[in-house]
Amino acid sequence: MTEPLGPGATIGILGGGQLGRMLSVAAARLGFKCHIFEPDAQPPAGQVAHRVTTAAFDDTAALSAFANSVDVITYEFENIPTSALDTLEAIRPVRPSREALRVSQDRLTEKQFLQKLDLLTAPFAAVQKRADLDKAISVVGTPSILKTRRFGYDGKGQVRLMAATDAPDAIAELAGAPAILEAFIDFEREVSVIGARGADGQIACYDPGENVHKGGILHSTTLPARLSRAQRTDAVLIAANILNALDYVGVLAVELFVTTGGLIVNEIAPRVHNSGHWTQNGCAIDQFEQHIRAIADLPLGSGARHSDIQMINLIGDDIDTLENLATDSATAIHLYGKSETRPGRKMGHINRILGPAT
Amino acid sequence: MTEPLGPGATIGILGGGQLGRMLSVAAARLGFKCHIFEPDAQPPAGQVAHRVTTAAFDDTAALSAFANSVDVITYEFENIPTSALDTLEAIRPVRPSREALRVSQDRLTEKQFLQKLDLLTAPFAAVQKRADLDKAISVVGTPSILKTRRFGYDGKGQVRLMAATDAPDAIAELAGAPAILEAFIDFEREVSVIGARGADGQIACYDPGENVHKGGILHSTTLPARLSRAQRTDAVLIAANILNALDYVGVLAVELFVTTGGLIVNEIAPRVHNSGHWTQNGCAIDQFEQHIRAIADLPLGSGARHSDIQMINLIGDDIDTLENLATDSATAIHLYGKSETRPGRKMGHINRILGPAT
Repeated sequence: MTEPLGPGATIGILGGGQLGRMLSVAAARLGFKCHIFEPDAQPPAGQVAHRVTTAAFDDTAALSAFANSVDVITYEFENIPTSALDTLEAIRPVRPSREALRVSQDRLTEKQFLQKLDLLTAPFAAVQKRADLDKAISVVGTPSILKTRRFGYDGKGQVRLMAATDAPDAIAELAGAPAILEAFIDFEREVSVIGARGADGQIACYDPGENVHKGGILHSTTLPARLSRAQRTDAVLIAANILNALDYVGVLAVELFVTTGGLIVNEIAPRVHNSGHWTQNGCAIDQFEQHIRAIADLPLGSGARHSDIQMINLIGDDIDTLENLATDSATAIHLYGKSETRPGRKMGHINRILGPAT
Repeated sequence: MTEPLGPGATIGILGGGQLGRMLSVAAARLGFKCHIFEPDAQPPAGQVAHRVTTAAFDDTAALSAFANSVDVITYEFENIPTSALDTLEAIRPVRPSREALRVSQDRLTEKQFLQKLDLLTAPFAAVQKRADLDKAISVVGTPSILKTRRFGYDGKGQVRLMAATDAPDAIAELAGAPAILEAFIDFEREVSVIGARGADGQIACYDPGENVHKGGILHSTTLPARLSRAQRTDAVLIAANILNALDYVGVLAVELFVTTGGLIVNEIAPRVHNSGHWTQNGCAIDQFEQHIRAIADLPLGSGARHSDIQMINLIGDDIDTLENLATDSATAIHLYGKSETRPGRKMGHINRILGPAT
C-alpha cells in the first residue's frame, strides 16, 4: 500500500475471537468495514463485523476469496499456518509482516532474536529429546520451565521443573513436541508495554502496565505500574527496539520481568494483547484503533494516558456477576458475546478508572 | 421486564443511522446482540450489528417478526409511527416509553409539558392557519421562529420571522403543516444535558456541554460549558425533573438556552443525542452504553467526566480529511460508515481531549 486506506475500505481479520471483535469495532469507528476469517461457527467477532467467512485455514479457495474481498489483512493470533500466509500474501498485504510471525511463533527463535538485539532474556536451551533436557538442565538449572516452542498460550504447554528428577515426567507431558527449557526468573513484578509502529517508522508506545496472573492466566493490569522513571523509559525503549528490528507495522506487546538485574524480556506477541485492554478506557486512542491506524497507513494516536486505571479479566463464571459489576459506576464493562461459559475461558474484562493520571 | 437482561440477550433498535450504530456497539460491549429495523438498505448500523431487518414501518409482519426476535426494543429517532408502536408494544417492551415519544414528537405538546413542570420555555403559540399566525405574532412578537410541530431536525421545517410582514412567506413555506410560533431567544449560549434514568428511578446525568451550531446543524460541543456552579446544578436538576415527570427509562437530551433571566428549555430528545457524543472519550461509560444499561435494567454508570473535551461534527466533505484529523494524536475519530458523502450530511465526529477535567 502506498496510500492510506479511505473510509469504506475493508479490513480482513484472521480469527474471530475477542481480539478480532474489538479490532472490528475499532475499525468501524474509523469508517472501515471488517471481514472476519474464522474456522469456528458463530465467532464473537461475527456479531459486530460486516462479514464473516467460516472456513478452515487450509481452504485455499476460501482464503483467496477472502483476500480478494479486502484491502489489507491482519490477525488476532500468531499461529497462522505458513501455507495460508502464502495464499493470502500473494493477493493482499498482510500486516504485521511474516517476519514478525516467524519470530514470535517459536519461543526458541524469539529468544535468539532478542539476544541478537542485546536484550536480556531468561537463560534458555533447546530441547528436542530426553537427552537434550538433561543437558539443558545442566546449563539452565532448576527451578526452570519446559515450554513447547509453539502453540502455547495462557500457561498451556508448560511444565515446571523444580529439580532435575522432574525431567522424565516433564518430557512425557510434552509428548515429543519441540521445546525450550527456560530458567525460572525470580522477578519483582511483570509489566508489559503495548507499542505501535507505522509503515513510515513512526512509533507510539503506551505506558507500561503491571500484570498479575492467576493460574497461568492474566488476571489484572494496573496503570501506572510500580516502576522508577528510568525503568519506565527502559521498558518503552525495549519495545521500540523490537518494533524497529522487525520493521514492524501494527501493535505489538512486550512482556517484561522486573528484576534487580534489570528488565528481562519474557515474550513478545505480534498483535493486540490482553494486557493492553486498559487503553480502551485510559486513552483517547486504544490499542485496537492504534493497530488499525497502523495497518491502514494512518497517523498513530499518541498513547497518552488520561487516567490511572485497572483492567480485570472476567474468566469463566466471573461473567455471571454482570449486574454486580455494573454497580460500580466508574467501571466500564467489555463482554465478548461468547455463547458458552467455560472454566478458564476469557468471557470479558472490566476497566476501572481509579483517578486522574499520576 | 423484571430481571436485568443477561449476556446474549438481543436488543432491538428502530433506525439504523449513526445513533443506532453507536448504540449497537455499546450493546455489544455489554455482551448483547443487536437487531436493527431500518427501511433504508445498507444502514450504517448494519455494518456492526448482529442482524438487520430491511422493512418499512408499516410492514406489520416484519415488525412482529422483529419484535419476537428481541428481548427489548429501543429507537434512535422519535418519529416512529403510532401504528408501528402498537404492533411492537403488544409483543415486547419499548423503552423509553410511548409517553416520552408522544411528548417529544410534537413541539406544542412538548412546550405545554414543560410549562406544567414550571420550567421556562420560549413564549409560544400554536399556528394551524394564516389567521392563527397573525394572532400568534401579536402574542409572541418578532423576531420569532415558525416551526412545524413535527418531523423537524437540524434546522429543517423552520422559518425565521423578522417582522409581522414575513407572515405570508412563512406560512407558504410550511405548506399547511401544523406549526408553532416561538419567540426568538436572545441567549448567551446553548448547553445540553444528557441524562439517564433507570426503571428503578436511579438517575445519572453527564456534565452540561456547550453547543455551537453552524447553519442550523450542531458544529461542536465543549466540556466544561461556561456555566456558574449554580447554573450547572440548575441544568442537571431540570433534566432530572423531566426524566422523573416522564417516568423515563433510557437516555434523554435536554437543550437549554443560557439567558440573563435563567435557563430556558429549548427542546428535549427522548434518545441519545449528538451533543452527548463527547462522552465516548470523556467518561468511563458513554451515553450509548448508559442508554443500553437503562433499557436492560442494569445499574447506570456515574456520568463522571475524566477529561475536558471537545466534540466536533464532521459534516459532508469534512470526512475527506481523515488522514489530517488523525495527525492530531489526542483526537479520537468516530466515522459512521456512510457510503455516500452529501453536503450537510453527518459523516462522523471527532472527540479531542483537551486535558484533565477542570
